[in-house]
Amino acid sequence: MITLLTDFGLGDYFVPAVKGVILTINPEASIIDITHDVAAHDIQAAAFTLGACYHQFPAGTIHVVVVDPGVGSSRRAIVAEAGGYFFVGPDNGVFSFVYARESKPRVFHVTNDRYFRHPVSATFHGRDVFAPVAAYVAGGTSLEEIGAEIEDYVRFEIPRPRSIETRGVIEGRIIHIDRFGNCVTNFTEAELKPDEITPSTKLHIGGREVRRFTAYFAEATNRDDLFAYPGSAGFWEIALWRRSAAEFINARRGDEVILDRGLLGLATEITESTE
Amino acid sequence: MITLLTDFGLGDYFVPAVKGVILTINPEASIIDITHDVAAHDIQAAAFTLGACYHQFPAGTIHVVVVDPGVGSSRRAIVAEAGGYFFVGPDNGVFSFVYARESKPRVFHVTNDRYFRHPVSATFHGRDVFAPVAAYVAGGTSLEEIGAEIEDYVRFEIPRPRSIETRGVIEGRIIHIDRFGNCVTNFTEAELKPDEITPSTKLHIGGREVRRFTAYFAEATNRDDLFAYPGSAGFWEIALWRRSAAEFINARRGDEVILDRGLLGLATEITESTE
Amino acid sequence: MITLLTDFGLGDYFVPAVKGVILTINPEASIIDITHDVAAHDIQAAAFTLGACYHQFPAGTIHVVVVDPGVGSSRRAIVAEAGGYFFVGPDNGVFSFVYARESKPRVFHVTNDRYFRHPVSATFHGRDVFAPVAAYVAGGTSLEEIGAEIEDYVRFEIPRPRSIETRGVIEGRIIHIDRFGNCVTNFTEAELKPDEITPSTKLHIGGREVRRFTAYFAEATNRDDLFAYPGSAGFWEIALWRRSAAEFINARRGDEVILDRGLLGLATEITESTE
Repeated sequence: MITLLTDFGLGDYFVPAVKGVILTINPEASIIDITHDVAAHDIQAAAFTLGACYHQFPAGTIHVVVVDPGVGSSRRAIVAEAGGYFFVGPDNGVFSFVYARESKPRVFHVTNDRYFRHPVSATFHGRDVFAPVAAYVAGGTSLEEIGAEIEDYVRFEIPRPRSIETRGVIEGRIIHIDRFGNCVTNFTEAELKPDEITPSTKLHIGGREVRRFTAYFAEATNRDDLFAYPGSAGFWEIALWRRSAAEFINARRGDEVILDRGLLGLATEITESTE
Repeated sequence: MITLLTDFGLGDYFVPAVKGVILTINPEASIIDITHDVAAHDIQAAAFTLGACYHQFPAGTIHVVVVDPGVGSSRRAIVAEAGGYFFVGPDNGVFSFVYARESKPRVFHVTNDRYFRHPVSATFHGRDVFAPVAAYVAGGTSLEEIGAEIEDYVRFEIPRPRSIETRGVIEGRIIHIDRFGNCVTNFTEAELKPDEITPSTKLHIGGREVRRFTAYFAEATNRDDLFAYPGSAGFWEIALWRRSAAEFINARRGDEVILDRGLLGLATEITESTE
Repeated sequence: MITLLTDFGLGDYFVPAVKGVILTINPEASIIDITHDVAAHDIQAAAFTLGACYHQFPAGTIHVVVVDPGVGSSRRAIVAEAGGYFFVGPDNGVFSFVYARESKPRVFHVTNDRYFRHPVSATFHGRDVFAPVAAYVAGGTSLEEIGAEIEDYVRFEIPRPRSIETRGVIEGRIIHIDRFGNCVTNFTEAELKPDEITPSTKLHIGGREVRRFTAYFAEATNRDDLFAYPGSAGFWEIALWRRSAAEFINARRGDEVILDRGLLGLATEITESTE
C-alpha cells in the first residue's frame, strides 16, 4: 500500500503521472491519496497532515510526500523507516512530525539511480524519483540498496508549549488551520486534561479570550462564541460554530496562544479567602 | 466495496484517516470516493448526491456518509440495509432518498463499541465509529451484532410536486443545484413526459418563464435562453448553455417552480373554439 | 486498469456514477482518476492533460475521457487503440495529442448498444455509454464488436512551432497553463536544446522578454524575473518563482511566443567584428 501527499492539486497531469509510474513498476500496488491540496510549497502543512494520519494505515504502508520547492537543487531525496512505516520524499522537513513521534527513525539518502525513471526530469522528482523508489520498496527492495543511511536529515522543530512560571500560564502556538477554519493549537492533554478545566480556565488568542471548553464540536450554538475542544489529531482546537474561527480572529499558523489554566487565579482566591 | 461521502474536503487529514482505519481492519476493502465536497453540514445535499448514485454500485456495496454536524451529541449512529446495499452514518436524514426509494429498509442503532476504534474521539466519528463499522460489515459482521433494530430513524420529507387543480398547474421545488449551476427540480416523468410537451408547456421560476424543453443538453445555443431537459438523476433540470442557470435566476435549493403543462390553456382554447 | 478524465468536478454524483457502472460490470477493474477538474467543456485542456500522462500507465490501460459538450447531439462516441493503450470518449478531438504521438491509431465508432447501460440518458453518456464500453473492453471485448472502424475521426491541429527565416526566430504558442500559472509553450528540444542557449537567447511573450533559462525550477529566486525551463511534459515552460507567470504576463492559451535563439544576433556580431 502506497499513499501520496503532494501540493500538485488535482487539475493537472502531475498526480496521475506519479500513479502511472508506480503502477507500471508494481501493478499490484494499492494507491491511496492523503491529499494533493496542500498549499503550494507549504512544507509545514504537509508535515502536520502526514503526522495526523500516517499511523492510521496498515503497518508497512509506504507514504510518499512530494511537497518539494527545492526540486532539482541540491536537496537530497530520502527514504525512511519509522514506526513500522516507510516514507519517501525530499529531505526538507516534511517528515518532522514522524521523526518527533517515532523512536529511532532510519533515514537513507536516495542515490541509486537504478531505481529511478529515466531520463530524470529536473522538475518532477515526484514522477521520476519518488514514485519509482516507492514502487520498488513496495516490491521488497531494501532501503540499504537505495542509498546510504544518514544522520543529518533535515527536520524542523515542532513548537512545544512553554510554561511561563511567573505568570502561571503556558505559551503555545497555532500549528495548523483546517478547511473549516478551526485553529489547531499545540496544547495536548499534557497541558490541559478535560477534567482539569475550571471556570477560570481560558485561552488568549489575538486579543480575544476563549472561556468555553467543550467535549465535542456540536455543543456550541452561539455563532460568535469561540470555544475550544480536544481535536481528533490530539491537540486542543479553537473553533466557532459553523464559521471559520481563523477568519473571525484573523489567525495564522504560528500565532501565539496563551493557556491560563486558572491555577494562579485559584491560588489568589485561596490567598484572599485566608486573609 | 466501500464508498465514502463526506463534507471533509480533500485538503485535510480527515479522509485519509478514515481510509486508513478501514484498510487496517480490512486490507481487502476497495474504497471509492463518492464526494468529499458536500457543503459543510449540508445534510440535504449529501442525501441527494447519495440518492443519485448509490444504486449504480455493485450489490452489497457499503455506503458510508459522514455529513454529521451533530457529531458527539446524542444523535445516533446507524447502519442500514436497503435495496441490497448497506449504509453507515449518522441518524440525521442523510439516507432519506434511500428510505424513499427502497421498500423495507432495515435500520440498526450502532451501539456495540467492540466495532469502534478506541479511544472514540468526540469530534471524529467518521474515523472512530463509521469507518470501523463499515470495515467490519465488509468483513461479514451482521448488522444485528452491531446494535438493535430501530423504527424511528430520522428522515426528512423529500418535497413532492403538488397539483394545484384550480390553476391547472403543478407546484414543485428546486431540490439540488449542481456544479454547473443546473437547477434540479423534483419534477419527473410522472409530472411531464417528453411526449406530452406542447407549445403551451412552460415552467415558472423566480419571475421567469422557461418555454424551451429539449431532449438533451447540447441542443440549446442561445446563452440567455433558459431551457429544461430530463436530467440524468431522473428529474427535469433547468439550465443555460455554458452558464450557471442558478446564478442567472438567483435560484436556491427549496425555491418554488411551477409547471404549467399547458392543459388549461388547451382546455380554454377548446372551449373558445366551440363557442 | 481504467483511468478517468472528465470536467465533472468532484462535488456531484457524476464521477461516482461512472465508477459504479464500471465496477458493476467489471468488479475487478482498478480505476485511477486522471483529473475531474478540467474547465467545463475545455476539450483542448483535456487533450493536453491526457497527452502528458497516458503513456505513464501500464500497457493495456483504458483511458476514458468525458469532456463532452456535445453529449446527446450527433457527435460520435469512439473507442481507439494506439500505442498499446485503449481510449474511450466522444469524437471531438480529446485524443488529438494521442493521435499526434502514436503511429497508426485505430479508431472505432461506438454503435453496438449491447455494451451500453439502458436506458441511455441523453445527457450522461459518461455513465451510460463510455463507462460500460470501457468496462467491457477491460473484460476483453474486442473493439470490432463495439463498432466499425472509421478514418475520419475528429482531431484538432496541435500548433507546431514555425520558423520565420527572415527574422531568424521561431514562432510558437502557449499550449497549456497549469495550476501554478506556469505557461507551457510548444517549444521542445527540437527548437532549443539546453546546451544551445547563449547569452543572446531569449523568448518574447506579451511584450516581455525572458532571458533566463534554467535547468530546473528551483534555480530562480527573483520574484519578478520570468524564466524558462524544460518542463516535465517535454516542453519549455515560462514561470515565475512562487508566483503565477500567467497572471503576471496576462497570458492565455494560444498566445504567441517568439523564440530568438540568438543566432542572428551572433551572425550580426560576427559581421560587425569583421568589418
